[in-house]
Amino acid sequence: MHKILRINMSDLSVKTEEVPVAWAGYGGRALTSTIVAAEVPPTCHPLGPNNKLVFAPGLLTGTVASNSGRLSVGSKSPLTGGIKESNAGGTSAQIIAKLGIKALIIEGLPADDKWRGIYIDKDGARIEEETELIGMGNFAAVQVLNNRISKSAGVIILGPAGEMKMLTSNISVKDPDSHLRSHGRGGLGAVMGSKKIKFIAIDPTGAQPMKIADPVKFKAAGMAFTKFLLNHPVSGQGLKTYGTDILVNVLNEAGGLPTHNFTTGQSLNAESISGETMYANIIKREGKPSHGCHPGCVIQCSQVYNDAEGKYLTSGFEYETIWALGANADVKDLDQIAKADYIMDDLGLDSIETSVMFGVAMEAGVLHWGDGTEIIRILKDEIGKGTPLGRVLGAGTGAVGRAYGVTRVPVVKNQAIPAYDPRSVKGIGITYATTPMGADHTAGYTIATNILGVGGHVDPLKKEGQIDLSRNLQIATAAVDSTGMCLFIAFPVLDDAACLQALIDLINARYGIALTGDDVVGLGKYVLKTEHQFNLDAGFTNKDDRLPEFFTLERLAPHNAIWDFTGPEIDTFWNF
Amino acid sequence: MHKILRINMSDLSVKTEEVPVAWAGYGGRALTSTIVAAEVPPTCHPLGPNNKLVFAPGLLTGTVASNSGRLSVGSKSPLTGGIKESNAGGTSAQIIAKLGIKALIIEGLPADDKWRGIYIDKDGARIEEETELIGMGNFAAVQVLNNRISKSAGVIILGPAGEMKMLTSNISVKDPDSHLRSHGRGGLGAVMGSKKIKFIAIDPTGAQPMKIADPVKFKAAGMAFTKFLLNHPVSGQGLKTYGTDILVNVLNEAGGLPTHNFTTGQSLNAESISGETMYANIIKREGKPSHGCHPGCVIQCSQVYNDAEGKYLTSGFEYETIWALGANADVKDLDQIAKADYIMDDLGLDSIETSVMFGVAMEAGVLHWGDGTEIIRILKDEIGKGTPLGRVLGAGTGAVGRAYGVTRVPVVKNQAIPAYDPRSVKGIGITYATTPMGADHTAGYTIATNILGVGGHVDPLKKEGQIDLSRNLQIATAAVDSTGMCLFIAFPVLDDAACLQALIDLINARYGIALTGDDVVGLGKYVLKTEHQFNLDAGFTNKDDRLPEFFTLERLAPHNAIWDFTGPEIDTFWNF
Repeated sequence: MHKILRINMSDLSVKTEEVPVAWAGYGGRALTSTIVAAEVPPTCHPLGPNNKLVFAPGLLTGTVASNSGRLSVGSKSPLTGGIKESNAGGTSAQIIAKLGIKALIIEGLPADDKWRGIYIDKDGARIEEETELIGMGNFAAVQVLNNRISKSAGVIILGPAGEMKMLTSNISVKDPDSHLRSHGRGGLGAVMGSKKIKFIAIDPTGAQPMKIADPVKFKAAGMAFTKFLLNHPVSGQGLKTYGTDILVNVLNEAGGLPTHNFTTGQSLNAESISGETMYANIIKREGKPSHGCHPGCVIQCSQVYNDAEGKYLTSGFEYETIWALGANADVKDLDQIAKADYIMDDLGLDSIETSVMFGVAMEAGVLHWGDGTEIIRILKDEIGKGTPLGRVLGAGTGAVGRAYGVTRVPVVKNQAIPAYDPRSVKGIGITYATTPMGADHTAGYTIATNILGVGGHVDPLKKEGQIDLSRNLQIATAAVDSTGMCLFIAFPVLDDAACLQALIDLINARYGIALTGDDVVGLGKYVLKTEHQFNLDAGFTNKDDRLPEFFTLERLAPHNAIWDFTGPEIDTFWNF
Repeated sequence: MHKILRINMSDLSVKTEEVPVAWAGYGGRALTSTIVAAEVPPTCHPLGPNNKLVFAPGLLTGTVASNSGRLSVGSKSPLTGGIKESNAGGTSAQIIAKLGIKALIIEGLPADDKWRGIYIDKDGARIEEETELIGMGNFAAVQVLNNRISKSAGVIILGPAGEMKMLTSNISVKDPDSHLRSHGRGGLGAVMGSKKIKFIAIDPTGAQPMKIADPVKFKAAGMAFTKFLLNHPVSGQGLKTYGTDILVNVLNEAGGLPTHNFTTGQSLNAESISGETMYANIIKREGKPSHGCHPGCVIQCSQVYNDAEGKYLTSGFEYETIWALGANADVKDLDQIAKADYIMDDLGLDSIETSVMFGVAMEAGVLHWGDGTEIIRILKDEIGKGTPLGRVLGAGTGAVGRAYGVTRVPVVKNQAIPAYDPRSVKGIGITYATTPMGADHTAGYTIATNILGVGGHVDPLKKEGQIDLSRNLQIATAAVDSTGMCLFIAFPVLDDAACLQALIDLINARYGIALTGDDVVGLGKYVLKTEHQFNLDAGFTNKDDRLPEFFTLERLAPHNAIWDFTGPEIDTFWNF
């Protein structure tokens, strides 16, 4: 039943292929990174004919296992020049899995200038010219496709930013309420834009339940696993109530909330942008404090955030976006940030890359610190319309730094550093430096252990233990990203070995195999090493595994913290 | 008498230091690259406090040897991220040498936001706050400094582009007519801008003639050397009459004139932008067909190019600029190109990087092909004023490609490829790929042997012999760049061993030493290896020694030529 669907945009052909034996045990990130490494020349131009876009649901996606509905997309990143995997929720992953599609590989560039849509259904795929949706924002385009196909169709969609091949562009995916989730970071929207694909619609008609090799064991493991998720204070309570924005006050107290373009570690705005404030607004304005990004999610970290009149403003309103505009760009007003978040979703802009970019743009004098009104105008009228200012800002944080001669530019491998200052939370600095993805907190979320006390404790201000912590988490994350599970399952997994066993039992029962914990670690190591090798073959060196110089020159209040890892110390990360 | 002048912008101190013994045998590029490699951390931010700007006259600069008046400047390039040396004529080099300054090292960043000027004289240097000249174009600023100091003062000046730290910015230097020459490529203006130095003025009062160890031998060698320069058909006749623009028709006939952003190898505009047309205009309009960029130049490849009313338009009007706007951006009108050239000189913009960028911008739809009027407007009103469009274009060819999602982006190490298509002139492709400078024809000018029949002949369309040719020329060029000699002396040197011997005799007579030809080759190899190692330490790999992918995918008319060197073949360049 499992197959590879290969779509070639050069000759507009669609092929269904057997799954090669070597790929059979992989899903999600393991599969996208394996295919990208096997088929994409590492030195190719990321927007040229030799790059590919690979979509793959995880190993458990399509089953009823809680939180297993994530879709991975892999490619060579036009932002970093290295390999990229990005996974998101939404409804497409589960439909793709239930149609028996193990991976969708899109290759080539069209010979003409036409935009196209790809329609996938139980019989395969067809490519059709698209005109109606071109230039249309994501929210409206999803509505058109709902009407054109059905509300239950999966939709993977490219916003105007991706159409313009901006390096800040995402690939977006429809959620259960026809709102949006994002395959963020790495500018993969530009790759989809280079192939001139506006959307991929997946018709669920005829989708089959996943075959489960041992249904009894699967059901038992699933119930145990769900219980662990619900009983953990982070995945079962904190995230459900306050969303990821719970972290504003936590990081502000820890002195690790990068503020005013990474010049200090605490923000005077923390209270007004905190998860607690968000929650109070949601209750008062009759939004939803909890919301799942895909069917089967029990963590429900998303929400529906309304304006003061009770009208929908945004959902999937994440800490990193709120931090980047609220603390790092000094915008006080949470509603302005929510409006900006909506516009970024509508345009298909990465809300971390874009928001961190605004901090550098403010330092360059492009706009005033804290000017949320101007941010909203720039998003809509400049970036959204591809004006010259929109083009320079839409090229991302590193590009703005280079265009304006700014030296305090928080990027690794040209990708913006997210919401945790590496000087005062040193473990995350190791993750930023070493992950093949470019600066990315999700690649090895040491905040869990450095700040939240999950999986033990490693003092965030000291160097001791950080490299091991980041390595272990990056290996575990690479494995989790291959299962189709949401990363937030890691909280109970890190705290209780029995939760990890339940996850392994789910995989074993699904496929009738007998993986051990060591096998899972082995999978994570394989993924990381495959990705690292791709980057080395693309021309990366250990010099790319470094934080920007300013972290080593400027101390961060309130802890007077500095980034003091040497190059050789960081390089030991790869000793495994 | 020889000394190092060290200026620290952080504490505004000036120190005079002894020349370290290890540096005594170096001048020009050998010295700037040695100092940069010794004192600049390869991974530092090029606009941060750890980068330095090093000026050094060549080994023969200040003597009466013909064409020996060039000044080298070295730094870590903010455009390429690698080491950069750029040399230019003008009057400053000879004055600096005669004041006994072997190198000027500028380090640190000012603690405040003030602009400053540096005044050098026989007693040392002083740093003074500057307000009058800030924002002023180079031509007017030179006039102010002539009035403020004297017309005979040397002036090294930063244009508005450099003030704005644009990656396309040069450092400019006053020529004998108070016009300008450029330390081009690599965006070194941005480094000077980061240190907030508007100018360096050098007062010649008290300058001493250079000590010559063996004046008789020096005079004889000098006369022989000059005769070789004057008797060679290229250095003695072609360049003097038509300037470097003589190459338009030559390259067009060879099918190596990149046209319409490197999509074909011949231009319909060739006639209207050729050296022959330029010469006819100069004669008709009473300009000067021949002009020296520094005292003692006998090649006189520069010129004064007037408009139809006989008013000065530009000088130092080079083939590469004319090609990039005239063929590669399809601008037919040589006078428009001359106006653009003047504006670029006035703003302190690299005319290769900026002009090649326009080809990519045209491909991106920013302006129409061949629209010289719009180019002039953009230069003056957008780049010159640092508008958003000016910022994105002012960041250079690679940046424009990334901002607009263009894949046909002719850069190596993020620096624009000049006026010779590597598919149909393969030797120069090896130079573009391998030189530590980023794409740079001057680093190893294989056009001499591939096209002009100087130093033998190597078929430009075949792979055979190109790597050896480029290597030998790059080694020779690194040595020549260390003498203070103009690169065009290479034409007779390549054709006659006796001319090389005269050059060596000049050095030996000047210093009372006994260098051999092997020593000169050894010097060239040392320079190249030192620069290459800096780049490796900065994170470059052999993957950076590659041409853009499109040269391997798109064939070039009229020869249907493709770039077919493999990576391992290119890597043999470094086997020496």
